[in-house]
Amino acid sequence: MIAKIQVTLKKGVLDSQGKAVHHTLTDLGYNEVKDVRVGKYLEVHFKDITDVEAEALVKEMCEKLLANTVIESYRYTLASEE
Amino acid sequence: MIAKIQVTLKKGVLDSQGKAVHHTLTDLGYNEVKDVRVGKYLEVHFKDITDVEAEALVKEMCEKLLANTVIESYRYTLASEE
Repeated sequence: MIAKIQVTLKKGVLDSQGKAVHHTLTDLGYNEVKDVRVGKYLEVHFKDITDVEAEALVKEMCEKLLANTVIESYRYTLASEE
Repeated sequence: MIAKIQVTLKKGVLDSQGKAVHHTLTDLGYNEVKDVRVGKYLEVHFKDITDVEAEALVKEMCEKLLANTVIESYRYTLASEE
């Protein structure tokens, strides 16, 4: 079981890394870009557990460690190991 | 149009950040975790362009700036602005 987790800054929180990437893209001539937001992407591989167990664990891990829920939000999907 | 881009280290490339997260999760008692890989997540918002244009731009931007294709691979999906 793999959890694919996306952690992003909440709307309204200044994303300086995103601004830097946007600026660089504009410098490179990509004027079609309106905005860039940068976040984290995590893949957590689990040992043999069920979907329900994985779901509960992922939520807990995000709240405790992987995301700072004051300024970040997280989304995840569960998939079986390829 | 938004491009949602995931940049991850290629298989076999040492992911020290992932190892650190894995270690911390184990310390917190999450023994169900087998492995963790950490990557980047980017949302690029475009001005009015077509799907085809966006697709070409995203590929070019990933190759040029957003991913280091020697050690990283990228995946993306295109979605219309909410």
